[in-house]
Amino acid sequence: MAHVCDPTLVFRQLFEKVSSTYTYVLADANTREAIIIDPVIETVDRDIKVINDLNLKLLYAVNTHVHADHVTGSGQIKQKLPGVKSVIFDMNAKADIYIKEGDSLQFGSKKIEFLSTPGHTNGCVSIVCHTAKSVFTGDALLIRGCGRTDFQQGNSALLYDSVHSKIFTLPDDYVVFPAHDYTGQTNSSVGEEKKHNPRLSKAKEEFIKIMANLNLPYPAQIDRALPANLVCGIQN
Amino acid sequence: MAHVCDPTLVFRQLFEKVSSTYTYVLADANTREAIIIDPVIETVDRDIKVINDLNLKLLYAVNTHVHADHVTGSGQIKQKLPGVKSVIFDMNAKADIYIKEGDSLQFGSKKIEFLSTPGHTNGCVSIVCHTAKSVFTGDALLIRGCGRTDFQQGNSALLYDSVHSKIFTLPDDYVVFPAHDYTGQTNSSVGEEKKHNPRLSKAKEEFIKIMANLNLPYPAQIDRALPANLVCGIQN
Ligand SMILES: [Fe+2]
Ligand SMILES: [Fe+2]
Repeated sequence: MAHVCDPTLVFRQLFEKVSSTYTYVLADANTREAIIIDPVIETVDRDIKVINDLNLKLLYAVNTHVHADHVTGSGQIKQKLPGVKSVIFDMNAKADIYIKEGDSLQFGSKKIEFLSTPGHTNGCVSIVCHTAKSVFTGDALLIRGCGRTDFQQGNSALLYDSVHSKIFTLPDDYVVFPAHDYTGQTNSSVGEEKKHNPRLSKAKEEFIKIMANLNLPYPAQIDRALPANLVCGIQN
Repeated sequence: MAHVCDPTLVFRQLFEKVSSTYTYVLADANTREAIIIDPVIETVDRDIKVINDLNLKLLYAVNTHVHADHVTGSGQIKQKLPGVKSVIFDMNAKADIYIKEGDSLQFGSKKIEFLSTPGHTNGCVSIVCHTAKSVFTGDALLIRGCGRTDFQQGNSALLYDSVHSKIFTLPDDYVVFPAHDYTGQTNSSVGEEKKHNPRLSKAKEEFIKIMANLNLPYPAQIDRALPANLVCGIQN
């Protein structure tokens, strides 16, 4: 119920208003080696300023999945900070590093671990940082919600199983940091979502019915975002 | 450089998009007694749902000052959660509890302390929570910025002295949680702002010149917000 609680971890949550996307910066407070999760192309300059002000050395730009609602900032970051490596799980996307279930990435003495949580897309991962007691859930689990399952190989039964078997089995006090929030909430916890998520706290059959009846509009940026994100962003 | 790091404190940061206002909920994790800082009228229902989901008992709705850019949610919260007391520093405003420099408020075993930090308005306070190593700076200190000083008894020389004598004398690793951010940043630290704030890291004379030449537009919601906020929000 508290927040990221590791004094040797630098942590910053950042927000991009148009797509309501959260970007995260994590770093080892001693070595200053850092990663960024889900950067957005529109806010790359802000993110790089934060990284420079905090005197961090960025190693990896990680995307939780191939986003359909905004263009990733990974490509621009790689251009502006040479040496940074893009990281993705999805084998259909182009990136410097492909991770798979159970892999981890090291930055200084800190580590993030990857859990395959498909359903919103096939290549969705959730990222766990055990020392921070945090999980970055991408669009698999949102605060009192979840990502849509009507595009990009979306599969609501699969999403339900992913969240229940991978995220909801983490300790209840782990902080949930999603890729988006549309209501101004910045985080939640595993215990809270297990109890209060209006979709995922339900039985599987009911969840599938809810997801089939959302009637969401066509994603505003999908035609621009998907081709760009399949190559980890616009690089030039 | 880490985040709110007190496992016995419940902490939640919330955002209202139209006025770019941050609202904060703090509670004792054991007794569940809670306070809310700078609620916004438009997001009262969201805030109350968070408070109820987290099984908290709200004692106080605290405003860091009489806001000119949004209507406080204090009045509506008092209506919807009877027993909650509104708290303000400004003697020109109406509230249940007036606090003064050096006062503190208790919720369970937790405590916040008030520092008078005038300059944006005469009644601006900054709120320190030592166990969370955090300071809620209202509009006195923003991330890489500060509140305007051209309305509501604004005085840039006074604001400079407030920030330097009250906020910048806190430990460098104290997290800065402002009342607003317009760039999607969620927090900063005292050490960071001392070094990187483009206004307040300057000498006093230069700061006064910067503030005199901002040429900001008339505050969008001031004519609606000020009369309401002087009585701690719309109550009926
Ligand atoms: Fe997505
Ligand atoms: Fe203000």
